[in-house]
Amino acid sequence: MMRIALGLQYDGSPYSGWQTQVNQHSVQDELESAISAFIGDACKDSPIKTITAGRTDAGVHALGQVIHFDTHIEREDFSWVRGVNSFLPSSIVVNWAKQVPEEFSARFSAFERTYIYALHAGPCRSPMVHSRAGYLLLPPNKYLDIEGMKKSAQCLIGEQDFSSFRSSECQSKTPVKTMYSVEIISQEPWVYFKIRGNAFLHHMVRNLVGCFLQIGQGRQKPEWMAEVLAAKDRKVAAPTFMPDGLYLAKITYPEEFGIPAPWLENSWLPSQITKP
Amino acid sequence: MMRIALGLQYDGSPYSGWQTQVNQHSVQDELESAISAFIGDACKDSPIKTITAGRTDAGVHALGQVIHFDTHIEREDFSWVRGVNSFLPSSIVVNWAKQVPEEFSARFSAFERTYIYALHAGPCRSPMVHSRAGYLLLPPNKYLDIEGMKKSAQCLIGEQDFSSFRSSECQSKTPVKTMYSVEIISQEPWVYFKIRGNAFLHHMVRNLVGCFLQIGQGRQKPEWMAEVLAAKDRKVAAPTFMPDGLYLAKITYPEEFGIPAPWLENSWLPSQITKP
Repeated sequence: MMRIALGLQYDGSPYSGWQTQVNQHSVQDELESAISAFIGDACKDSPIKTITAGRTDAGVHALGQVIHFDTHIEREDFSWVRGVNSFLPSSIVVNWAKQVPEEFSARFSAFERTYIYALHAGPCRSPMVHSRAGYLLLPPNKYLDIEGMKKSAQCLIGEQDFSSFRSSECQSKTPVKTMYSVEIISQEPWVYFKIRGNAFLHHMVRNLVGCFLQIGQGRQKPEWMAEVLAAKDRKVAAPTFMPDGLYLAKITYPEEFGIPAPWLENSWLPSQITKP
Repeated sequence: MMRIALGLQYDGSPYSGWQTQVNQHSVQDELESAISAFIGDACKDSPIKTITAGRTDAGVHALGQVIHFDTHIEREDFSWVRGVNSFLPSSIVVNWAKQVPEEFSARFSAFERTYIYALHAGPCRSPMVHSRAGYLLLPPNKYLDIEGMKKSAQCLIGEQDFSSFRSSECQSKTPVKTMYSVEIISQEPWVYFKIRGNAFLHHMVRNLVGCFLQIGQGRQKPEWMAEVLAAKDRKVAAPTFMPDGLYLAKITYPEEFGIPAPWLENSWLPSQITKP
């Protein structure tokens, strides 16, 4: 058997999320079908099962998803890319493939994840990014308090109990995660949140963005973020913000595995946010 | 009666084009229904008819479309924006409204049009811009000859007979149009074509892009563009390129009408291409 890792991008808007679920249409279903179709009869007796670095929710996108699967089929790396892509719908694409040692796990070898939230804020929504960016209605000539949001982000850095930002359905063993950085990049009428951490709780980024936008709109002071964090209580935080603008951007692995970088520059996001 | 001008954006991918046609789903249908729904019973006896600056084709988008219509209903400018938007689907939005003098025509007062073509070129398509950018498959580590395309564009500037780039269905009285500028902006893996002219023939921009890409891929020399132009024969040019990346970006009117600038910065296009 060989272990193959794939780098994926997908528009999550038509899907019920990454994971296969009964009576739902998932990214995993589409990918496993495409791999099986490419392999053909050779996988009839051992269906392809994929393991993912991050199980994205319904409507959430990926720019740098990584998965692995085991197979006894031998193909050139780029042949996996071309072959699987020929069976995938336009909403999912494989960017790279690489044979990896069997001790590599897309899920357990990952030690850092980067999410990007792309937000459009203004008096009229934009049809050009419908379902691919979050939207906040602002009155004409109003904009968000970017400095206030940046200030509020400082308390999140480091090892923290993120219970206040955790959905009730979260299956993580612990609410304690380590946040490495929160960048907030403004390009009116756009705001991009780039968040790096060792791992994330269910709905954590969308709950953080919900809180940032309370501060950005002046409904809460920047100091409020630290109060929410300290409360360790989901009820004190803002509502979960919409999935449309959320992108799983990068999964980081030990260098020894030689996992390729994600293809962020082929998204529509500006270079200020896609640069490493 | 009053004459109202509206500035519009739309994602053209779900539509058969701008213009109302029997058994088709057009942007004009959606807009006229939304205006009528906002006005309510008051327009029962005189249905709203809109006149547009540019009739975009199936799958072609608009960032700065301008239309006008006549009505006896009085509303504040921003009330038209909010009201009509509340009846429009997510693929169409009104950005501004303005009462204009009756000698203004969205179509006949326009003296310049700007189109932008957004192209993604690389070995794997991008789900993030599916149906909102053109795509050209290139082998890994290959890119387009940007300088060659720029050189080839020079022959197009000025008053020219563009018969070679005109579709057989074109209804224009003359194939002679004036091209003011062609900018080609490269940000690998993206190429943006920004084309300004007094008016355009049917399929003209898509036919020009098709020819640019022959040169960009090294299948033709830069001098070939001048030969195609001189031939005044559609058969010598390249096939019509896909509509997905084409945006009607700006319509220019005499300053006296005070028509607002298009909201290009709320599209996903980079600032290099959206700056005036």
